[in-house]
Amino acid sequence: MNKNSSNMMALAPNTSEKRETVCIFGTGDFGRALGHKMIQSGYPVVYGSRRTQISNLIPKDAEVLGHTEAAQKAAIIIIAIQRQHYNFLTPLAEVLRGKVLVDISNNLKLNQYPESNAEHLAQLLPGSKVVKAFNTVSAWALQSGMLDASRQVFVCGDDLKAKQTVMNIVRALGLTPLDKGSLLAAQEIENYPLQLFPMWKFPIFLSLGLTAFFFFYCVALEIIYTYIYENNDFSFFIAITIPNRVCPVMALILLALVYLPGIFAAIIQLYRGTKYRRFPDWLDKWMLCRKQLGLIALAFASLHVVFTLVTPMRAFVSWRTSKRIISQALNNQTEPLDHTNAWLSDSYLALGILGFFLFVLLGITSLPSVSNNVNWREFRFVQSKLGYLSLILCTAHTLVYGGKWFLNPLAYKWYLPDIYILSLIIPCAVLVVKFLLVFPCVDKPLTQIRQGSERNPKYSE
Amino acid sequence: MNKNSSNMMALAPNTSEKRETVCIFGTGDFGRALGHKMIQSGYPVVYGSRRTQISNLIPKDAEVLGHTEAAQKAAIIIIAIQRQHYNFLTPLAEVLRGKVLVDISNNLKLNQYPESNAEHLAQLLPGSKVVKAFNTVSAWALQSGMLDASRQVFVCGDDLKAKQTVMNIVRALGLTPLDKGSLLAAQEIENYPLQLFPMWKFPIFLSLGLTAFFFFYCVALEIIYTYIYENNDFSFFIAITIPNRVCPVMALILLALVYLPGIFAAIIQLYRGTKYRRFPDWLDKWMLCRKQLGLIALAFASLHVVFTLVTPMRAFVSWRTSKRIISQALNNQTEPLDHTNAWLSDSYLALGILGFFLFVLLGITSLPSVSNNVNWREFRFVQSKLGYLSLILCTAHTLVYGGKWFLNPLAYKWYLPDIYILSLIIPCAVLVVKFLLVFPCVDKPLTQIRQGSERNPKYSE
Amino acid sequence: MNKNSSNMMALAPNTSEKRETVCIFGTGDFGRALGHKMIQSGYPVVYGSRRTQISNLIPKDAEVLGHTEAAQKAAIIIIAIQRQHYNFLTPLAEVLRGKVLVDISNNLKLNQYPESNAEHLAQLLPGSKVVKAFNTVSAWALQSGMLDASRQVFVCGDDLKAKQTVMNIVRALGLTPLDKGSLLAAQEIENYPLQLFPMWKFPIFLSLGLTAFFFFYCVALEIIYTYIYENNDFSFFIAITIPNRVCPVMALILLALVYLPGIFAAIIQLYRGTKYRRFPDWLDKWMLCRKQLGLIALAFASLHVVFTLVTPMRAFVSWRTSKRIISQALNNQTEPLDHTNAWLSDSYLALGILGFFLFVLLGITSLPSVSNNVNWREFRFVQSKLGYLSLILCTAHTLVYGGKWFLNPLAYKWYLPDIYILSLIIPCAVLVVKFLLVFPCVDKPLTQIRQGSERNPKYSE
Repeated sequence: MNKNSSNMMALAPNTSEKRETVCIFGTGDFGRALGHKMIQSGYPVVYGSRRTQISNLIPKDAEVLGHTEAAQKAAIIIIAIQRQHYNFLTPLAEVLRGKVLVDISNNLKLNQYPESNAEHLAQLLPGSKVVKAFNTVSAWALQSGMLDASRQVFVCGDDLKAKQTVMNIVRALGLTPLDKGSLLAAQEIENYPLQLFPMWKFPIFLSLGLTAFFFFYCVALEIIYTYIYENNDFSFFIAITIPNRVCPVMALILLALVYLPGIFAAIIQLYRGTKYRRFPDWLDKWMLCRKQLGLIALAFASLHVVFTLVTPMRAFVSWRTSKRIISQALNNQTEPLDHTNAWLSDSYLALGILGFFLFVLLGITSLPSVSNNVNWREFRFVQSKLGYLSLILCTAHTLVYGGKWFLNPLAYKWYLPDIYILSLIIPCAVLVVKFLLVFPCVDKPLTQIRQGSERNPKYSE
Repeated sequence: MNKNSSNMMALAPNTSEKRETVCIFGTGDFGRALGHKMIQSGYPVVYGSRRTQISNLIPKDAEVLGHTEAAQKAAIIIIAIQRQHYNFLTPLAEVLRGKVLVDISNNLKLNQYPESNAEHLAQLLPGSKVVKAFNTVSAWALQSGMLDASRQVFVCGDDLKAKQTVMNIVRALGLTPLDKGSLLAAQEIENYPLQLFPMWKFPIFLSLGLTAFFFFYCVALEIIYTYIYENNDFSFFIAITIPNRVCPVMALILLALVYLPGIFAAIIQLYRGTKYRRFPDWLDKWMLCRKQLGLIALAFASLHVVFTLVTPMRAFVSWRTSKRIISQALNNQTEPLDHTNAWLSDSYLALGILGFFLFVLLGITSLPSVSNNVNWREFRFVQSKLGYLSLILCTAHTLVYGGKWFLNPLAYKWYLPDIYILSLIIPCAVLVVKFLLVFPCVDKPLTQIRQGSERNPKYSE
Repeated sequence: MNKNSSNMMALAPNTSEKRETVCIFGTGDFGRALGHKMIQSGYPVVYGSRRTQISNLIPKDAEVLGHTEAAQKAAIIIIAIQRQHYNFLTPLAEVLRGKVLVDISNNLKLNQYPESNAEHLAQLLPGSKVVKAFNTVSAWALQSGMLDASRQVFVCGDDLKAKQTVMNIVRALGLTPLDKGSLLAAQEIENYPLQLFPMWKFPIFLSLGLTAFFFFYCVALEIIYTYIYENNDFSFFIAITIPNRVCPVMALILLALVYLPGIFAAIIQLYRGTKYRRFPDWLDKWMLCRKQLGLIALAFASLHVVFTLVTPMRAFVSWRTSKRIISQALNNQTEPLDHTNAWLSDSYLALGILGFFLFVLLGITSLPSVSNNVNWREFRFVQSKLGYLSLILCTAHTLVYGGKWFLNPLAYKWYLPDIYILSLIIPCAVLVVKFLLVFPCVDKPLTQIRQGSERNPKYSE
């Protein structure tokens, strides 16, 4: 076929006529949009349709014929009809023999049918070469040129040459084909466009829930308590003060939740003495969404940083500073520098900055293009070593910040602890257990288990 | 051929002799640079040249022969000569039959010839397998190892095996081949290295023009007006104060310009009642540079953030603060906290922070490696839903900031409005029309049109 | 083979039975982990082992047979045994003829053997089709599903179809195959997982050394000197003040070191009059780690920005400000605005912001996914033009900051200059020489040399 196209080229040097004719079965929305785009890219297009007269919806330069005549005109037939009508193709089996059929269909639900549409088509027409493609692109995107992103078109099929032909068409339309292997991948490809951040759902709901809890906890302690007992209206704390308390707490807890499943996994493996038994389902799922948890933690940490940095610009803070300075000036006194305070304030800020810096590094290495360029050893070094270092620094940042209030009974309004105390529970627990796991007497058997040895080989029988 | 190379390997285990001989026609700069690199990577190189004696420019380990003898020694011939001399290859057609010819040529202008150089070569020598490659790499980069980026080598060709062979050579030189399909892609590949950010040209010139206008507008109102009427020299405002006024204005206007073409498109479609007619050319072009507009808006927003955050470090601000506090102290008075002001200041900052946060999220999802990992539904969710949310937050941020000055006649120097008032026109217009378009009575017909229905089927005939 | 798999599918529509049987030689850790994963992905797995009875370690659904029987059951055999035992495969040559052998082995050291394990295997069994794959994935990652990153599996092999088959398996396991070409790439693939940021080693050690030097230099001048001669304890400067002096110095020096090798290269080429001789080794190595130097410089610059922005939040700074304002208030005086100071402070900040902004742009364009989307001309424009602009702005930022102290003898404690003076040496030298190189009388011959001309053709003979 490559030979032919090269010959065609020699005969017809004009760009718009060099391409091979493509046949499209079905004049629905996607069929029309794809036809438009193909004609723009220089492909002659023939539509196969039952009603050959409705030509006004169809691109002007396209021909409309009956199915059989249209199929005979092209080596590639795009099946732009719905799966439930695939049966009508069976009588055309002889015409379609040896031709490339491109299945572009999508379903309405995940795993709607036991086998994918493309595999169903391949079973109906075993003599044709079925290729799955184009289902990840929307008709609206094709039509309006809104292809800023998602230029990727997943392609799969059992016939290498047929797949190459379709991938060439994909490239000619300005899209990027991605070979997903044999037709067995069609199910996954058909499920793909139906997803809306499936890996992010649990982490986002967890974060929203925790954020709401901590927010109202803070509103109660900071605003309502102050209003009731001190008769001060600090309702404007809702805008910055309270978000800037909730964000660091969320960041620290979520970062600790990234490392907690690894701790659980190590304990389970030590207890079982083997790595060859599957983890409980909840742990598996948790492990798979660690990256998402980490990125949400990073988002909260970034918000905390910006909320903190705007502090001097707040009217409330500037009023408070003025008040303090004026009262000192009126009392004719200048406080000496409190060295302990200077140390605490500076080391607290420095710990936070370094922890956040490492956190951002982790975030950058989790960008797909960066993580694809590091090997397994490097990835583990960054995510494990630097990640724990970041957790240690951020926990220390929180400890130094709140250190002096821990044992102060005045800090407990309504006998409730401040949220930064709550936020320290999980990180400290993770760090303590991780510290124990690093000891040689624990680390050695764990390493052996992870290298495949079994303490009790009979266990798994 | 793969079989052969595997046999060769068995006979010659030493790395530097395992590779197949490559012939290079032409001893110009690129031919020499490529030959150097290939010899370094272990390929025996034979040059084909008219003058076989000028060997001092040519890598020492390379042989130099006449064209015919050189071509007979290799299965792959790299054509490192200019298109205008391709004709001299015609007599060699018989020697080159069945061989892989690699066209590495570039042109001086976009679309200089009606057909690409590689297609021209394929027409001259129909018996050879022409592959386009290496034209995107510069000789200087090859020579000096300066391949930090742009390791990508676009490869296209009609013969699959020939393409694979060339891609293997590309990989062996430490570069990354990218299959662009059949030889029809050669035109695009030849145009590629001539481009200098073609999609960025219009957005950058627009931004520069608007920035210059707003900058001088501000200089007039803030510095010249103050100098003339108040006799104050605030010329140092040029460094930070005025840039920090222009940046947010530019960010907001450009962000609104990202969403304006979508509004126009919806109105045009509603008016025409069909999506199958092309948009006017200006709208098409505008739509295609929305990503660039958005990223420039993000750059301005980031500058605004940093310019704002350094405020407390400015000598002028610190002088102003001192003056205010000292005058209060000398008057022996302490102002009470102004709750309205505290609310306004905090909510203005919080709106800005959240808007900027969403804006950065949009920027991250527009990184190629991230946007390739989201499907169409997810991309639209982020770019449309979160994008509009960001626009709403940023507009609200500006409204709250300037709210109290809107109707204040003192704010109008020389009867001209402040630039933040100008900056609100487009964003507010976009948000109002978008709000109308979301109403069911408008949204429903629009959705139908975008799903392919036509209100007036005769229209497009 | 594709035909067969399509037939199989028609007969056995159930997902778990559609895949072709895979044979694994060796029941070690990786063999077991891979078998587990393959069974999960629907592949029937047969183990080939000497001891067919130890079935408790092996996945339950897998069969365990002798090597010959196992090999006969599958077209693909994964060789999960160590290189030193490859010899035992020689007697099986007849059974393995025509089959796909997947070499997954790794070595313990870089370039441990003269030829790669996969090539060794191909020499032992010339009748089989050897494909290298899976060696970049760790058994522990496969087992625990911890594949957040590094989903990439490098694949190479001489037989195209065999490679395609293995790539389909890789895809089916949820991993991303990356074709690295012929089996000659096996050595590189086997070395890959042993690396730990090889390109980063020198830049990181250089940065650590310089940082330590500047840190202790500052500690001596700022803390020890002050303690001895002024009896002030400023030990808390260690947390923020001194890091915020070292970071900008390191950023500026490293940024200059990115552009210094280019200067050296230009001088060497001008001196030699040719570009066809290799640079000295140290220059080659330096050139190859410029990207890493630049990114470390960016990290230091980012730390400097954050350290600077938290300044107003420091207890020490707030104490110093109060003290200054109170003393003014007590003296009943208000200083007038110092215009020179306002200009210096604002322009110093503005230069730093713009320099940092361009620096971040450079960082973003060096992300692999971004740099892959720009052509050579665009990359050079960004990295060279914008890079030099950033260096100029950052150097000016430092000059304006320290300008007034340069000639002040009080600035020289112990007759030692402040570190920002040291930091200016290399950047200023680079900028001055670059300025000279831009002059036409120097630029013209340099451009000619880089386009391939030789001043003295005999030189390289």
